Amino acid sequence: MRRTVFYISDGTGITAETIGHSVLTQFGAIDFDTHRIPFVNDEEQAHGAVAKIRNAQASTGTRSIVINTVVEPALSEILATSGALMLDVFAPFIGPLERELDLKRESRVGQAHGLVDFQEYETRINATNYAMSHDDGIDVNYSDAELILVGVSRSGKTPTCLYLALHFGVRAANYPLTEEDLERQEIPQRLRAHRARLFGLTIDPQRLQQVRQARRPNSRYATIEQCRMEVAEAEKLFRREAIPVLSTTNTSIEEIASKVLSKLGINKHLY
Amino acid sequence: MRRTVFYISDGTGITAETIGHSVLTQFGAIDFDTHRIPFVNDEEQAHGAVAKIRNAQASTGTRSIVINTVVEPALSEILATSGALMLDVFAPFIGPLERELDLKRESRVGQAHGLVDFQEYETRINATNYAMSHDDGIDVNYSDAELILVGVSRSGKTPTCLYLALHFGVRAANYPLTEEDLERQEIPQRLRAHRARLFGLTIDPQRLQQVRQARRPNSRYATIEQCRMEVAEAEKLFRREAIPVLSTTNTSIEEIASKVLSKLGINKHLY
Repeated sequence: MRRTVFYISDGTGITAETIGHSVLTQFGAIDFDTHRIPFVNDEEQAHGAVAKIRNAQASTGTRSIVINTVVEPALSEILATSGALMLDVFAPFIGPLERELDLKRESRVGQAHGLVDFQEYETRINATNYAMSHDDGIDVNYSDAELILVGVSRSGKTPTCLYLALHFGVRAANYPLTEEDLERQEIPQRLRAHRARLFGLTIDPQRLQQVRQARRPNSRYATIEQCRMEVAEAEKLFRREAIPVLSTTNTSIEEIASKVLSKLGINKHLY
Repeated sequence: MRRTVFYISDGTGITAETIGHSVLTQFGAIDFDTHRIPFVNDEEQAHGAVAKIRNAQASTGTRSIVINTVVEPALSEILATSGALMLDVFAPFIGPLERELDLKRESRVGQAHGLVDFQEYETRINATNYAMSHDDGIDVNYSDAELILVGVSRSGKTPTCLYLALHFGVRAANYPLTEEDLERQEIPQRLRAHRARLFGLTIDPQRLQQVRQARRPNSRYATIEQCRMEVAEAEKLFRREAIPVLSTTNTSIEEIASKVLSKLGINKHLY
């Protein structure tokens, strides 16, 4: 069984797709053919979307499903003329919120998604630059870091730092544990002053071996023995030093980022 | 007027917060005090969340608002005992989808958000590594790039490449235009073979000046004259070479990323 799904938005369509993905995974028996239609913010765009939906319905012979995050009711009405099953993300919230707050919503198309203010943009960009320049642990000054991820090579530190920067504007540095650190079972001196901001990442050795093998095939670095040794020693070190730790195996980057912030008590909001 | 808002999720809470942010910006007169409660995936966690909501309501004397993306109905019922205004993101979709598909949803807590498969994770991580190692334009081999962002220094190329990698798994490289390129009004030879994958970013010169000034105060690089000259020459070059172009001024990273994919006809889905 196959269905066509359209994620339609007056912004990027990223929110619509995220929500749609969460909902549709609950109907695993269906093969969904998904399409994003972003930046539907005038009547012409809305009619264009309707034409695409009608085409899909004509060619598949089934009703399409629309996950809609367009804010303006007049545009949603146009979209509804397609005959698709309309699933509105925001519409069901507006009535209850207006009654609860005793206030009418202000219609400002696009503002919900786009047009970020300068300060927010700056914070994200600066944090991203910070993550990129504090990535390898060499010659890095950690004094400005809001948090420091510690782990063996390829345990997931870099993408997590970048995600924290891009989405939360958090200045996240990382420190790759060296064989010397693992042998000595000590974190290096220059990290000691920042102990409260350290967070350990670990990973299943077999998974680590896969990742390293893809990166440097048939190196000592990618042998299962080396991966097992490094992970075991790193986990021992985290326990010894009482550094909180999380396994990145089977965990999405979003989930790792969210858990790290939560465990370190950093209450930053999404941009 | 002030209201407390809780973003509650069985996953990271990032979807709940994104949606909540979009909805709440339509009520600009209210000062919302927002909190994320992630990983509510058992009854104990749900009761813990209820206690937090009740505390907030007792201390502020107003009803709290809950934006809820918890999938399991039994847990949502517990959350509702808090007396807060419950705004369920997924619940309104389930009935219509079950009827439309003639199928019951499968209850699998957490699956909607977490536990990504190995292949997806690999694609994102590889794309992120790719973006980081193809960032400065020096000694970069562009043959593997799915797209190449071109622009003057600080026009928004790096964060956009990282966003494309982390969210869409797209291998995005970037090339910073040099003064020589601008003078010659030509893209370098090694980019010519990839012309169809080039995308230009531009930026308002005053905004560029602000960004550069923050980075290298009082340098020639950060003068308004230099910024005006570079932007004018870059825009002229994009026209000459017929490279599609987008201004990053007042545009969020999500929006830039989404528009670039859309204009280059790359139909990648979110991870």
